[in-house]
Amino acid sequence: MPTTTWNRHHILSLADFTTTEYDTVLQTAASFQEVLSRRTKKVPTLQGQVVANLFFEPSTRTRSSFEIAAKRLSADTLNFAAATSSMTKGETILDTAKTYLAMGTDIMVVRHREAGVPNAIAAEMDRLGVKVSVLNAGDGQHEHPSQALLDLFTICTLIDPASPRLDLLKGKKIAIVGDILHSRVARSNIWSLIASDAEVHLAAPPTLLPKLFAEFLLESGVRSQEFIISSSPSFPTPHSPNQQLFLHWQLEPALQNADFVMTLRLQKERMTAHLLPSLREYHQLFGITRTKLQLCKPNVKVLHPGPVNRGVEISSELMDDPEFSLIQSQVTSGVAVRMALLYLLGSGKA
Amino acid sequence: MPTTTWNRHHILSLADFTTTEYDTVLQTAASFQEVLSRRTKKVPTLQGQVVANLFFEPSTRTRSSFEIAAKRLSADTLNFAAATSSMTKGETILDTAKTYLAMGTDIMVVRHREAGVPNAIAAEMDRLGVKVSVLNAGDGQHEHPSQALLDLFTICTLIDPASPRLDLLKGKKIAIVGDILHSRVARSNIWSLIASDAEVHLAAPPTLLPKLFAEFLLESGVRSQEFIISSSPSFPTPHSPNQQLFLHWQLEPALQNADFVMTLRLQKERMTAHLLPSLREYHQLFGITRTKLQLCKPNVKVLHPGPVNRGVEISSELMDDPEFSLIQSQVTSGVAVRMALLYLLGSGKA
Amino acid sequence: MPTTTWNRHHILSLADFTTTEYDTVLQTAASFQEVLSRRTKKVPTLQGQVVANLFFEPSTRTRSSFEIAAKRLSADTLNFAAATSSMTKGETILDTAKTYLAMGTDIMVVRHREAGVPNAIAAEMDRLGVKVSVLNAGDGQHEHPSQALLDLFTICTLIDPASPRLDLLKGKKIAIVGDILHSRVARSNIWSLIASDAEVHLAAPPTLLPKLFAEFLLESGVRSQEFIISSSPSFPTPHSPNQQLFLHWQLEPALQNADFVMTLRLQKERMTAHLLPSLREYHQLFGITRTKLQLCKPNVKVLHPGPVNRGVEISSELMDDPEFSLIQSQVTSGVAVRMALLYLLGSGKA
Repeated sequence: MPTTTWNRHHILSLADFTTTEYDTVLQTAASFQEVLSRRTKKVPTLQGQVVANLFFEPSTRTRSSFEIAAKRLSADTLNFAAATSSMTKGETILDTAKTYLAMGTDIMVVRHREAGVPNAIAAEMDRLGVKVSVLNAGDGQHEHPSQALLDLFTICTLIDPASPRLDLLKGKKIAIVGDILHSRVARSNIWSLIASDAEVHLAAPPTLLPKLFAEFLLESGVRSQEFIISSSPSFPTPHSPNQQLFLHWQLEPALQNADFVMTLRLQKERMTAHLLPSLREYHQLFGITRTKLQLCKPNVKVLHPGPVNRGVEISSELMDDPEFSLIQSQVTSGVAVRMALLYLLGSGKA
Repeated sequence: MPTTTWNRHHILSLADFTTTEYDTVLQTAASFQEVLSRRTKKVPTLQGQVVANLFFEPSTRTRSSFEIAAKRLSADTLNFAAATSSMTKGETILDTAKTYLAMGTDIMVVRHREAGVPNAIAAEMDRLGVKVSVLNAGDGQHEHPSQALLDLFTICTLIDPASPRLDLLKGKKIAIVGDILHSRVARSNIWSLIASDAEVHLAAPPTLLPKLFAEFLLESGVRSQEFIISSSPSFPTPHSPNQQLFLHWQLEPALQNADFVMTLRLQKERMTAHLLPSLREYHQLFGITRTKLQLCKPNVKVLHPGPVNRGVEISSELMDDPEFSLIQSQVTSGVAVRMALLYLLGSGKA
Repeated sequence: MPTTTWNRHHILSLADFTTTEYDTVLQTAASFQEVLSRRTKKVPTLQGQVVANLFFEPSTRTRSSFEIAAKRLSADTLNFAAATSSMTKGETILDTAKTYLAMGTDIMVVRHREAGVPNAIAAEMDRLGVKVSVLNAGDGQHEHPSQALLDLFTICTLIDPASPRLDLLKGKKIAIVGDILHSRVARSNIWSLIASDAEVHLAAPPTLLPKLFAEFLLESGVRSQEFIISSSPSFPTPHSPNQQLFLHWQLEPALQNADFVMTLRLQKERMTAHLLPSLREYHQLFGITRTKLQLCKPNVKVLHPGPVNRGVEISSELMDDPEFSLIQSQVTSGVAVRMALLYLLGSGKA
């Protein structure tokens, strides 16, 4: 492992991540990626420590990814799933967290359908003066930092496998396509990408763009124009003059010369909420296909956080095309990045 | 670990626990509490042994506590949850237990909503002449020995951290408040507390006292009097003249000068069964608050087996007050005590 | 472990298993049976490898058996259960498998209610050129190879504990009784038993025999005759002139002088599908009892894959009779055989 100074005690959001922190995560994950290619894929780093997966919202794939990451580090894991838990018995979320604290948990990986729950747990742990770390594994429509970090790692290692770092993305055009409004993945990705000085383009139907953007677009009466948004109360904003965030309610200008296309999962419930005409029409307008990719740079790559609705966000053919799709690499990167995060949070413990 | 002779093969009830057995559990748990404060919290004691959690009634917190205890001892764990099991396929409970036996289970931790299930499994294992141990993790309204032992450990280590032992409770006044009638926790606690020669006071509305007691109280036409019960067919009874069990259907006489107040979880279903007027009225009459604690000794401590219905059995404010609440300590003690029980049952194996 | 050449990369079906392969599994399982009798029951063989149990159809007992087998080999395990998974989110089965592949899974143990799913996953893994092995843990009405291999191991070690091998069954009369039509266990058992040159007798009501057989029987207008079937498009067929498969729609000719009686689990749903008059009548006609066993060889043994419907496929009394019942041995053999299969698939990895 690289020797490094890491001072962050919880990982809740990427909003205030520094370049050094991004680079530390990327380099640490690269070391673990190397461990994972060995015959014996385990390291004793977190032996005797307990990682509790507190998944108030069910998610097999993210939970499995954290679980295997923890086991590769020789930690013991505990799985809490809301469905079968005493939550139904009237206990509050903080009480549940404190129970796992009292049982000797060192790191809590928290997912909840409400934004802010991991922050609330972390605040309570700090108030109690205990050393437990909290890692946000997705909270409502707020953030999903480990997903954005694995996306970042996937892209950066593609550009420079030996030395993934944030500045590799400088000037790259990256499109984020889909349900921006409801996506915690998009929120976390925007923070890391604007920190890298990439050129970030968001494309979505107006009903799936954050409200302020959508109102602005609708009032303007325009249909296909390009916007540079410099500030929005409900959304990440660039912090330097170099950083630019573009919004589109048509797909094409976002794809034009893009280096990477990040697609987002579409919750089918959106349709019943009248935010979408039909999945078929959505696919026609915003679904990514090999044909549409011809607008991008020739070696463009496509990402998706999974699970994919084949034929909706992305064509089935494209999803399975190793020339364009990074989806499998993302899952593999996920284990290495989560090992890195658990390592950075856990190695100062006890 | 203290060298000790431990002859009990199953832990099903505290009814016939000896002073020596209580003290052995307390001292062994104290050793493990020390292990848990080390950097590496694992010991190889049960390496290669299998602990199966057979939870026919779901319980995330108790199951997690046993699971982490087993993992700290380096045992392998198997989790059986009734919901997803073949129980729906027509197999009997004993068949399920025998299946886990045949797979090589060394210790079965059993929870079931019916009283007597752990005893029935233990009897079957003995009949088969196998070495498997059964540990009752809560059976109906019968007993919950590991909970009572962790309560005992929590109290005793508070009085003498270096040497917790049963005789520390001699003459202490301990109130048990709440749904005595339906509580397996209360039943197990009464056994251990009367064995310690503490003065045990039970307080509950008449509808939540064991039937014989309630009938007696109602027939007497009294409302606030104090009773010394010397014998009851359905309930633990003192075995020596020193041991006293008091019953109250008002809270105040139980709290008067109490050293410890053990509150019990209230099942909200009780209200729909017309055993309670309302949760609010229950809280007013039997809920523990800082004000009511003024009746007790100044350094009184409050326990609750969890999960707590905040504002019902105990005020939210009091629950979070480290000056009075031992609730978090109980959870931590739970891991140490369960390590001790698994160790005592398991170390003679194979 | 015996040094052996094992070239099979997936275990999906026993249809083309060779005698050498059967004997390798039996001998390897015998070595692990010996390991399981030691004080420390773990071996480091698969340390650092990941075994993922992908159970799209729930099964606590089979999943627990594979899980404990994997843990005895020091592998890390991941459990995927369809109920709580993202399958509901629109991901395909192959996408799920590829996600677990990308997370670093070495062996996938797959159960699904549709026949052919493990084959489809294995084909996809091969197409991708990855080293992951797939083990069929039961697919629809197709096959359940590990169950048939543990049945084989149970029988062979009874005959010669020191050296279980396929040719021990030559000439033994083995009856398979029950719902042949829907049983993947029967299908896999028939492959292994005819490979051993045992004399295999199937007995079932006509509605629970494979369709072609049933039609043939019904058209013949016979009620109790014995048939030698040499070929059937939907069922295993003997490959040598020595191998014989007999079908009966009455129980008695199958039991006559039998050495072993394999009973099959009856799905109670069959009755609602009008395939059975009543469970009581089924038990009267095809249920195995001590009285009916008097038709068999004196030291006949009875098997059942579990979970048993007591009093349906087999009388409760007989099930618990260690003189006749091998049911508990089967469960124990299951762990040893699954250790052997994981070992044979996994030891060539990485």
